Amino acid sequence: MAPTPGGGNDGLWSDPPRGPLDAYRARASFSPRELQLFWEGEDTLRFKKAVFSALEKDPLFAGSRGADLSLEKYRELSFLRCKRVFEYGFFSLDNLDQSLLRLPALTYCLGMYDWSVGTKFALHLMVFGSALYSLGSERHLKYVEKVLNMEIFGCFALTELSHGSNTQAIRTTAHYDPTTEEFIIHSPDFEAAKFWVGNMGKTATHGVVFAQLYTPDGRCHGLHSFVVQIRDPKTLLPMPGVMVGDMGRKLGQNGLDSGFAMFHKVRIPRQDLLNRAGDVTPQGTYTATFKDARQRTRVSLGSLSSGRIFITGVCVVNLQQAVCIAIRFSATRRQFGPAGEEEIPVLEYQMQQWRLLPYLAAAYVLDHFSKSLLLDLARLYGGLLRGDQAAPQAELSREIHALAAAAKPLVSWTAQQGIQECREACGGHGYLAVNRLGDLRNDNDPNCTYEGDNSILLKEASKYLLNFLEPEEQDGVRFQSPLQTVSFLEAYPVVLGQRFQGTSVADWLDPTAPLAAYTWLVCYLLQSSHQKVSQERRSGRSDFEVKNSSQVYHLRTLALAFMERTVVQRFHTHVRSPSVPPSLRAVLGRLSTLYALWSLSQHTALLYRGGYLAGEQAGQALEAAILDLCAQLKDDAVALVDVIAPPDFVLNSPIGRADGELSKNLWGAVLQESGVLERASWWQEFSVHRPVVGSLKSKL
Amino acid sequence: MAPTPGGGNDGLWSDPPRGPLDAYRARASFSPRELQLFWEGEDTLRFKKAVFSALEKDPLFAGSRGADLSLEKYRELSFLRCKRVFEYGFFSLDNLDQSLLRLPALTYCLGMYDWSVGTKFALHLMVFGSALYSLGSERHLKYVEKVLNMEIFGCFALTELSHGSNTQAIRTTAHYDPTTEEFIIHSPDFEAAKFWVGNMGKTATHGVVFAQLYTPDGRCHGLHSFVVQIRDPKTLLPMPGVMVGDMGRKLGQNGLDSGFAMFHKVRIPRQDLLNRAGDVTPQGTYTATFKDARQRTRVSLGSLSSGRIFITGVCVVNLQQAVCIAIRFSATRRQFGPAGEEEIPVLEYQMQQWRLLPYLAAAYVLDHFSKSLLLDLARLYGGLLRGDQAAPQAELSREIHALAAAAKPLVSWTAQQGIQECREACGGHGYLAVNRLGDLRNDNDPNCTYEGDNSILLKEASKYLLNFLEPEEQDGVRFQSPLQTVSFLEAYPVVLGQRFQGTSVADWLDPTAPLAAYTWLVCYLLQSSHQKVSQERRSGRSDFEVKNSSQVYHLRTLALAFMERTVVQRFHTHVRSPSVPPSLRAVLGRLSTLYALWSLSQHTALLYRGGYLAGEQAGQALEAAILDLCAQLKDDAVALVDVIAPPDFVLNSPIGRADGELSKNLWGAVLQESGVLERASWWQEFSVHRPVVGSLKSKL
Repeated sequence: MAPTPGGGNDGLWSDPPRGPLDAYRARASFSPRELQLFWEGEDTLRFKKAVFSALEKDPLFAGSRGADLSLEKYRELSFLRCKRVFEYGFFSLDNLDQSLLRLPALTYCLGMYDWSVGTKFALHLMVFGSALYSLGSERHLKYVEKVLNMEIFGCFALTELSHGSNTQAIRTTAHYDPTTEEFIIHSPDFEAAKFWVGNMGKTATHGVVFAQLYTPDGRCHGLHSFVVQIRDPKTLLPMPGVMVGDMGRKLGQNGLDSGFAMFHKVRIPRQDLLNRAGDVTPQGTYTATFKDARQRTRVSLGSLSSGRIFITGVCVVNLQQAVCIAIRFSATRRQFGPAGEEEIPVLEYQMQQWRLLPYLAAAYVLDHFSKSLLLDLARLYGGLLRGDQAAPQAELSREIHALAAAAKPLVSWTAQQGIQECREACGGHGYLAVNRLGDLRNDNDPNCTYEGDNSILLKEASKYLLNFLEPEEQDGVRFQSPLQTVSFLEAYPVVLGQRFQGTSVADWLDPTAPLAAYTWLVCYLLQSSHQKVSQERRSGRSDFEVKNSSQVYHLRTLALAFMERTVVQRFHTHVRSPSVPPSLRAVLGRLSTLYALWSLSQHTALLYRGGYLAGEQAGQALEAAILDLCAQLKDDAVALVDVIAPPDFVLNSPIGRADGELSKNLWGAVLQESGVLERASWWQEFSVHRPVVGSLKSKL
Repeated sequence: MAPTPGGGNDGLWSDPPRGPLDAYRARASFSPRELQLFWEGEDTLRFKKAVFSALEKDPLFAGSRGADLSLEKYRELSFLRCKRVFEYGFFSLDNLDQSLLRLPALTYCLGMYDWSVGTKFALHLMVFGSALYSLGSERHLKYVEKVLNMEIFGCFALTELSHGSNTQAIRTTAHYDPTTEEFIIHSPDFEAAKFWVGNMGKTATHGVVFAQLYTPDGRCHGLHSFVVQIRDPKTLLPMPGVMVGDMGRKLGQNGLDSGFAMFHKVRIPRQDLLNRAGDVTPQGTYTATFKDARQRTRVSLGSLSSGRIFITGVCVVNLQQAVCIAIRFSATRRQFGPAGEEEIPVLEYQMQQWRLLPYLAAAYVLDHFSKSLLLDLARLYGGLLRGDQAAPQAELSREIHALAAAAKPLVSWTAQQGIQECREACGGHGYLAVNRLGDLRNDNDPNCTYEGDNSILLKEASKYLLNFLEPEEQDGVRFQSPLQTVSFLEAYPVVLGQRFQGTSVADWLDPTAPLAAYTWLVCYLLQSSHQKVSQERRSGRSDFEVKNSSQVYHLRTLALAFMERTVVQRFHTHVRSPSVPPSLRAVLGRLSTLYALWSLSQHTALLYRGGYLAGEQAGQALEAAILDLCAQLKDDAVALVDVIAPPDFVLNSPIGRADGELSKNLWGAVLQESGVLERASWWQEFSVHRPVVGSLKSKL
């Protein structure tokens, strides 16, 4: 069977450049092209190639990606690049099903280039644009059109200076005035200023602004969203009553203008209330779409789930790029070796394999998971579009909410830790800005915070799981959900009696072993969390106290372990599906088992404590299995990163280039920096204005 | 007993500003002044206060610390600030004993202000200066004088583009030419260019340069160090034959000019060989101070130990500052709360306590440890100065080498993870550059890499421990060392039979409990590492392979656990010494036990696996004890950071100011950024040069 796919893919691939990476490439156990085709599909491959080629050919994208620019200049450049993406017309919204997957793909391509561009684009089109669509109604379609034409530029303004996580405490108000049929948007003080709003700093003309809705009778109807004009599109000057500004430098994504705004009695038309959850009549009567206020809020904040799922993909591409750089570096960087022989690539060291290869596995496993969540989301949106409001649709929404709330923490933390490990694994060269690991880390970092702080989000997932054990639901069907992520819990009393039966490395290399261990672990954590919560309740504590005192070591761990198990389960099933070419099964299976065991090994203490493991051998064998898989995968590692690596132009890392000419690329890049060999312009400060040691001592 | 120390400390303290932090300060169980006096000593307190006051009053230190400056400007400013430190004459080398402790204290003060200044200063004076002193001889004192007067400016050039960790493979050569009595320093190619040399980029006039020494007979005598002039102090232009340049932007410390250099047959006088390890006669005969080549190398690289110990202190002050910011933020940031009541500070949440308070404990425990290592080093230097070359001195040197090699990884990783946790614990506001957590993280990051990559350094410590079990040493006395850090291993066969006897939280809160567990753990790891290594050897593997395949899960874990135990042991002893005021014992004891248990809890899997723990209760109680200590410490947390926090001017973080006016400080800082409310200069790019969507589609 020919490992390289045949005709019909012309122009899709070029051979990797010859060089120091040849040796590893030759040792790969599979065809990278075949894997790439299977992994992405030809359609997506072509699309990504088109996007990358356009960027590479366009001089606007040739220059700096920020670090050496002033904030003003970097923001201008990011805006111009974002505008250029519209000019290329990479996407069309004619086919909504297609665009639901293609828009993220485009954004990930832009983000691989530079997240300042990617986030700017996503906030305008996918966050602002889709909020108009999902929170509003037909009367707001006029805005959607302007979004697509870039006649207006949007932002999403929920967070305030003093409130982020506790959205219910948002203090911006929207009082309805029936005499003019307007809402009056107002910030009571600077602590209620909208804060951390991407695109708001310099560019947004309009925002979806969240505020507490008051009717003329003085009643507050809770948080609602409004389209508020912030700047005049003709002049980009603020609208009357709006004080809007730029928050200044951040740890990363500095091409993105994060901003703040205070509203001083800004009047907007009644129709600019986004009215999916509730509306106000011209006379000032509130009409709720849902009776339950909590359900209204859920609709208002519902678009956050899609944002969280999108972010998991953002983190995946960040991790992938970091792993590409670190693996190629490790395959070409030589240091030490057997006595009297040539130095060996650092990838040959067990330590380096153990530091990097689990993250390579994560880069594959989490990529699949993130894409699968996007398909779940498409199913949910399909139901919404059909106007499906039946119970299963609500259940699906709850399940996806829980999955998204736990997926973002797991994936963003994995990426954060993985990128840091890659940076350190590249030694000093990883610390040089030109090699890009710093930008990847800094641009990835906010994913741990925005669209819901990771630690707080995890509560949503554990709440979802514990709810299945609530007494009132015990009569009905238990542990059933549309996506069946909780089905395994049905048998939890039985599962808790299970024990790991193996003793050897081979027993752990059986791909069902980590899955079985995870199943036991989640059941164990569910039970102990339930016991903890019940015990706290029995001691007379308030709901608030019960939750507060059950997070650490209980609910938090439960949510993460549940999510890890879901990820492991999905990839396990995926690599065994008939669609997988037989020649790829071995390598994908190894990635699957390595990720599963490595991830599981964080929980070994609980496996022992709860009795699932016993004796020294079980734990030793688990560790040996991880090292064994690392050794098995190290010769495939370069080919595996070739599959997920963007072109060199996009990856933009001298030590990570596909030609593997580590030293030459690095030396060349360093010499190309501006003024690198020039004497400092302030040289006289050393040689002319000489210091007199202690001359200022009297000033002390 | 008056908690506030009485007379004699006038002017040393001022009351903390009144404000939102009052409530926590009032609840503290101890007097911060008393703790500060005990912790630092009056002398150091006065010294630090003098340094901080001078910086605060001096306009040169008032401006930006970098993020918004060009590389050129930031480097100029850092150089000027470094020069100004000499003008203040904060230190004198008249009293060498005092200066050994005072110089680090001064550098840590500068580093708290900005590590670009601190590192620049340290590289010139402490690294370059002390290398001249410790690697050279009397004939090099002329350089030391010029260092102190800043007539020359120094750097330390060991690493090359292609070699860092494997110093033996350094490829710069120094051929001796007897006809002119000169060494010819030469870089064979760009891969042998000196690389990553701090101060070399723009400012250094001289370097301690490491090269392979060749005598005229063609013999190579291994790595030696030379004083090489790089630039003309009058013009700051490179010397003939030297190509020297700046490496460009890094992930942090961008005021420091890291550089590279290639030498093209650069001739230097014979006397500029730093000749402590060996010398060359005018005729070209090599004379070794030590017969053993390995011992010569050890002397050449010996100064790295002091560098590593210095770095542990660097990491400690970084962690301390991050913890100060995050704790003050957490004590004033309110979010959610019991139903119907005012929102509560996030520090009241168990999750936030668990995320931050162990790092607060680490900030104290590791500070003490770092200082104690410095005292060990002073003892070693004392012996060197007395010309002591007896066996105990060599043993002390080996022990300190091992301690330094494991301390740097432990402390730099703890700081790296702690700062990241602080950044995330401050949510979005932690991501805003002005709040400084990004700079702390980025400036701290290279500590994981320079002066020896953490992962590689750990091998030195495990090798030290395993050597005690080598057969040839079994006849003599085992597990004895000058600092007695390994004495507990003497009883390791007995220790391995011990078991944790407790079941309750109280059993873990007994401060001897974590220490006993650590003692067992290190014995267990020593035994299993020894078994692993022996087993690998028996299977016929080479030394190289044996080491390579025993790092992960064995030698690496052994080195870290040994170091953690040493840290825990020293603090445990310290807080029980008679010098501790009775009123401080409770709080210091809690910090001690929290750090010990939290650190130990990373190893729970091994404790179970090896049988030290059994049953669910032991592990549950360990977790409960950690949470219990967090709850006990949360009311002391603000006072504890008051003790270690530098003045607001130095800490330089709106959300971390001592007045606790979180929102006001943040709002004020954001509004003070330049052009914050101004329209973007490129506004016409939106409103005039409008994009035509899809207009470039044909170019795809």
